[in-house]
Amino acid sequence: MQANELSSLLETELSGLAWSMQPGDLEQFGQDWTRFHQPDASVVFFPNDIAEVQQIIRLANRTGQVVIPSGGRTGYSAGAVATGGEWVISMVRFNAISDFNPIDQTVKVGAGVITEQLQQFAADQGLFYPVDFASSGSSHIAGNIATNAGGIRVLRYGLTRDYVLGLTVVTGSGEILHLNQGLVKNASGLDFRHLFIGSEGILGVVIEAEIKLLAQPPNQSVMLLALTSLEAIMSVFALARKSLVLSSFEFFSDRSLKRVMAHRGFDNPFDELHPFYVLLEFDENEAAAMDVFESGMESGWVNDGIIAQSLDQATQLWQYREGISESIAHYTPYKNDISVKISLVPAFMEQLEDILAAEYPDFETIWFGHIGDGNLHLNILKPADMDTAEFKAQCEQVNVHVYGLIQQFSGSISAEHGVGLIKKPFLPYSKSAEEIRLMQAVKQVFDPNGVLNRGKVVDS
Amino acid sequence: MQANELSSLLETELSGLAWSMQPGDLEQFGQDWTRFHQPDASVVFFPNDIAEVQQIIRLANRTGQVVIPSGGRTGYSAGAVATGGEWVISMVRFNAISDFNPIDQTVKVGAGVITEQLQQFAADQGLFYPVDFASSGSSHIAGNIATNAGGIRVLRYGLTRDYVLGLTVVTGSGEILHLNQGLVKNASGLDFRHLFIGSEGILGVVIEAEIKLLAQPPNQSVMLLALTSLEAIMSVFALARKSLVLSSFEFFSDRSLKRVMAHRGFDNPFDELHPFYVLLEFDENEAAAMDVFESGMESGWVNDGIIAQSLDQATQLWQYREGISESIAHYTPYKNDISVKISLVPAFMEQLEDILAAEYPDFETIWFGHIGDGNLHLNILKPADMDTAEFKAQCEQVNVHVYGLIQQFSGSISAEHGVGLIKKPFLPYSKSAEEIRLMQAVKQVFDPNGVLNRGKVVDS
Repeated sequence: MQANELSSLLETELSGLAWSMQPGDLEQFGQDWTRFHQPDASVVFFPNDIAEVQQIIRLANRTGQVVIPSGGRTGYSAGAVATGGEWVISMVRFNAISDFNPIDQTVKVGAGVITEQLQQFAADQGLFYPVDFASSGSSHIAGNIATNAGGIRVLRYGLTRDYVLGLTVVTGSGEILHLNQGLVKNASGLDFRHLFIGSEGILGVVIEAEIKLLAQPPNQSVMLLALTSLEAIMSVFALARKSLVLSSFEFFSDRSLKRVMAHRGFDNPFDELHPFYVLLEFDENEAAAMDVFESGMESGWVNDGIIAQSLDQATQLWQYREGISESIAHYTPYKNDISVKISLVPAFMEQLEDILAAEYPDFETIWFGHIGDGNLHLNILKPADMDTAEFKAQCEQVNVHVYGLIQQFSGSISAEHGVGLIKKPFLPYSKSAEEIRLMQAVKQVFDPNGVLNRGKVVDS
Repeated sequence: MQANELSSLLETELSGLAWSMQPGDLEQFGQDWTRFHQPDASVVFFPNDIAEVQQIIRLANRTGQVVIPSGGRTGYSAGAVATGGEWVISMVRFNAISDFNPIDQTVKVGAGVITEQLQQFAADQGLFYPVDFASSGSSHIAGNIATNAGGIRVLRYGLTRDYVLGLTVVTGSGEILHLNQGLVKNASGLDFRHLFIGSEGILGVVIEAEIKLLAQPPNQSVMLLALTSLEAIMSVFALARKSLVLSSFEFFSDRSLKRVMAHRGFDNPFDELHPFYVLLEFDENEAAAMDVFESGMESGWVNDGIIAQSLDQATQLWQYREGISESIAHYTPYKNDISVKISLVPAFMEQLEDILAAEYPDFETIWFGHIGDGNLHLNILKPADMDTAEFKAQCEQVNVHVYGLIQQFSGSISAEHGVGLIKKPFLPYSKSAEEIRLMQAVKQVFDPNGVLNRGKVVDS
């Protein structure tokens, strides 16, 4: 549809709604944190309420358009990019936090509430929203729900899924569903709430959610350990888990540390570089932490360590881990976000290292991850002089080896980023042909004309 | 199909399989713990492996038969009863516990493993499987999964859903799906594992599950409090939650207590009868428990209390709560298993009491429930001289009032028992017409010929 034709359609059919066809808006709302596609949205809508979302979706159904729900656009799988003239629905105006109930310890959040806002709201009530990750300052709650976001505390607190007690959505056919409505126990038929969580906008648009909050945890401590080898990571994890109540157990490589030091101008936290590091967050217990450190040293797994002595120092140590993504962002990294069972991590990493050495000899690879969940982030940095399309193509060739290994280990090609466009060709490494066929059929049920995020996750 | 015709079909098509057409088996496997239907199964299969389950389902597809997956048959919603010549698949031979992994803290269990066996297995490894309820000694894991079973520790540990890391199922079209395969984090498309949990056998047959175990909790204490009024229940809950780490907060009425005392020959735990009781289980903390008791007395909410001084006494106190269902079983109770948000419990109970007084003046009603989850069990006892069908019909007339109130409160007509046959007519009180339509369409995707548990949960 031509721009002027579209304008006139919208003026006729959706006259009261806010939208933009400004090039700057189309570019901004047509992309996410991946940088492999040219943004190409036709229009960005800024609806104010659920009825407006319904109107847009119904018009898209009548006119055969594709609609893309858009949150904070911090995704790494191109699940919210517009690449072929789609209509984008920005949920930015659904930013209310309401209906806090201290007895239920629940609160209602609009789709466009930013993760950090919800964390802060919980803290203001003396409660805790534990889902956290590097993009918490920009990501929207509905985006977290669409990808079942995990992050740095999954080990202890689980995923976004575990905090969603209610979900209001508009389906691809424009119908409103109020799913579960905040109940703890509800065995009245198929639980579509859980089907929508992690569905990446292919079934419906999340409008608002009822979120469970937790009591605040005890004071947390942070310890950074420098490890001697890859094998030491799981040994230290087993050791630490016995004596500490862990909230996080994060791993990164020497190359990751060097990137953060260079990007943020930080000093090396230790006297020298070590091959691997793990960052532990746990319920304050200095004696037990010292024991872990000392036992690790005695066993030859640990080279050095720092236990934060203040909140400031804890925050500083976290930056060595949380700064990694940002420090490599301008290299247009190709991101593998993979998982296997926790117990299989050592064998998997060993074989993966062999593949990387054989297949990526010329690319810089940056490792980090949430070891306690079996989730590894493997970033391949684009050489400055290489064309983006060529780089993506080369990485996708290597994927055949990496994902072949994941398939052998019954792992996931996407642990927490989602499938979107980027991982779609590789979905068969984690899902059977029958499961993919069923996904297509279920999408068809909720979105019979395929207007919602068409082409993402599965072909429709 | 006539019995001799069926025999000859099975001898031809499923010659290696074990099945029975003995009247005793047909009766036993044609019913559950509800007693409102005449069992009428044609045959009971006892498959040994997944391929045999596939064969049965494929034959059912070819011949237009209906298949009912059967677990421990402890259900209260008639989700596993055979009422019209269906084929029953008993999963009793899928009773292996295997592949325990101490690092992942996971274990594989066959569909027919009994809940108590899994609890015991976990304890033998120094770990903990927290899902527990009165029928743990007979219920099968796959039945728990089919209804997303909750029970007495949901308050702290959540539902069956929260422990299922992997699920192998055979769909209604006879396809095998391996869902999630034990991963902690997996964002690779629609998560059908969560769709199957709570689906009551209408989408597929659960073959085995990978279950997450927990570290053992601290020692638990039990306290039984006699309360002065209905309103006191929530006040005591708020009070207790502040100072104790609660695992359970269970409520029952004086009538419930009298039934258990009569049925089991127990003495009254207190000097006299009180209108309501709550049973608390919590991390051992005698001082804090005493504080709760004393504050409750001072506030006029608590009349009397007992803190268990030994494990034996704790077990004894639990029997006053866990013995209720058994003590009323031979009255063919009509069971309402309803939930609202926790904060709405007091207002809901007050209005519900008015309805009961007006509509059930002649029936004995027995209250108990998991107050900390907003889940109430309301049992109506059948007068000895009333016909079962007449009794059911009368109860269903009152349901219009009870479920109308639930609808006003955005609650659930089935908190943990499922919908099955018994609650199906009342599903519209908890689910919209569109949601029910979508359930039917999703069933159609997984079970195109409607061979699985046809007529349960939704019409197909």
